[in-house]
Amino acid sequence: MNVLVVGSTALDSIKTPLREKPRLLGGSASHAAVAASFFAPVQLVGVVGDDFPRRYLNLFLKFKLNLEGLQRRPGKTFHWSGEYEINMNNRRTLKTELGVFEDFQPDLPESYRRAPFVLLGNIAPKLQHHVLDQLRKPRFVLADTMDLWLNIAKPDLLRLLPRVDALVLNDSEARQLTGLDNVIAAIPAIHRLGPRYVIVKKGEHGSILSGPKGLFLAPAFPLAKVVDPTGAGDSFAGGLLGYLASQPGPIELNLRRALVHGAAVASYWCEDFGLARATKLTTADINRRTRDLMSLTRTT
Amino acid sequence: MNVLVVGSTALDSIKTPLREKPRLLGGSASHAAVAASFFAPVQLVGVVGDDFPRRYLNLFLKFKLNLEGLQRRPGKTFHWSGEYEINMNNRRTLKTELGVFEDFQPDLPESYRRAPFVLLGNIAPKLQHHVLDQLRKPRFVLADTMDLWLNIAKPDLLRLLPRVDALVLNDSEARQLTGLDNVIAAIPAIHRLGPRYVIVKKGEHGSILSGPKGLFLAPAFPLAKVVDPTGAGDSFAGGLLGYLASQPGPIELNLRRALVHGAAVASYWCEDFGLARATKLTTADINRRTRDLMSLTRTT
Repeated sequence: MNVLVVGSTALDSIKTPLREKPRLLGGSASHAAVAASFFAPVQLVGVVGDDFPRRYLNLFLKFKLNLEGLQRRPGKTFHWSGEYEINMNNRRTLKTELGVFEDFQPDLPESYRRAPFVLLGNIAPKLQHHVLDQLRKPRFVLADTMDLWLNIAKPDLLRLLPRVDALVLNDSEARQLTGLDNVIAAIPAIHRLGPRYVIVKKGEHGSILSGPKGLFLAPAFPLAKVVDPTGAGDSFAGGLLGYLASQPGPIELNLRRALVHGAAVASYWCEDFGLARATKLTTADINRRTRDLMSLTRTT
Repeated sequence: MNVLVVGSTALDSIKTPLREKPRLLGGSASHAAVAASFFAPVQLVGVVGDDFPRRYLNLFLKFKLNLEGLQRRPGKTFHWSGEYEINMNNRRTLKTELGVFEDFQPDLPESYRRAPFVLLGNIAPKLQHHVLDQLRKPRFVLADTMDLWLNIAKPDLLRLLPRVDALVLNDSEARQLTGLDNVIAAIPAIHRLGPRYVIVKKGEHGSILSGPKGLFLAPAFPLAKVVDPTGAGDSFAGGLLGYLASQPGPIELNLRRALVHGAAVASYWCEDFGLARATKLTTADINRRTRDLMSLTRTT
């Protein structure tokens, strides 16, 4: 089944302790859509400027993304510059140039409006609402967010939560959203805000799924070297939703395996800058690492 | 089979954001020995002063610890004071009074010298050597350590590592020991220092076992409230070694399950101050939580 992905499509300039890479293909929707495409057909919603390199459009096409919903506007593509610290866990934003993203209105092509699986990638909650308003009875809506929206658009985000099936956020965001220091205590508080499923990302420490069947602790793949974690969270969400869309049967029964597939995808994402590792990746690679991850947590 | 536990036996004065508890029973050997006693007979090696409360000796006896190796000396019992920050992850030492621990020589009673399972709890590496020197062919020796010994006794610790089967340490200590920022990269470097098995503790994020059969990622039990994490690492090591000592068959085959039992034990330890939760605990409780932990990581 189809996956609709909305979010940012951007150029990322990334500095790590070892290297610097200017104007890579980035943005929450780019990472999530490419990740989901390993499992299911993807409809992309985003906006780029007239400086968006042709080779990046070709990259999207290589992954067979439906680009009918990718707007091209006069002006500059959203450009993010960031820098990672030596441990690769902490990053700081050096510069954000919104460009054509400033007036982005994610209007969906008619063919997108019946998408059964929907990823509201990390963009302003107002835009996430705008996408939801145009959809006809999606089967499963997963929303991502970030600390920025908790700071500047919390009321919009709180209105969004009862409208989505699942919220994915990282541990510090779970604390910020609830005001609770303990992530395990924060989870029921997030459920009370609306979503039936809550997924808390903990980076190298894995992730936690909470739903009607209780908790599931998903591992992260143990990487001895992280080259660039940019997009890891987006690819995790995209991979898990793509996997869900590809599986028959009740979502509840597929969700745990979906998190492990997402973790496998995200681990590959960290192995090179931007989407470089993704372009060499196969679904067989992902399935193999997913099996490896499952055996890493088995006691027998 | 028997477990020999050596380490500190202390009085702990603990401050958390909510409460303050003076002169609790503490020390690495106390926590580890009580934890191991849920699974196997335990021989305790330690030293206390003449101020050591009778009720704490009774507590040891309640857990059927063999106290033949617990020396009682004129002077004061080792006293540690520490304070936890609001997130319960960071602690700082307020005061350390060594007392009779200053001249501690862990001389083993004859009946202890054939112990098959040995936990060299967190004490000076010189004392860990001294215990090893007195043992006759132990089957499995697990050593614990802490940042203090990496700072002031690293050469002794490096001489110890080839003499033990397994080293347990936390993630920041793994980084400090190897100079490597990535824990997964640090693990093979620690193996090269000697131990066949390396166990890296990550607190609420679980632990990693590395051995000839590769890696195992053990979960931590998701606690919505941590009252006092003091002794969690010691009880984890004690619980896992006690479980190992209680199981027939090759150690390699039991180790993964041993880590999960250790994690279950450690989670109970965090639910109250000092050994308060332990005194109300049953082996059935531990086994139930171990099963719960295993199901929290299962995908089907």
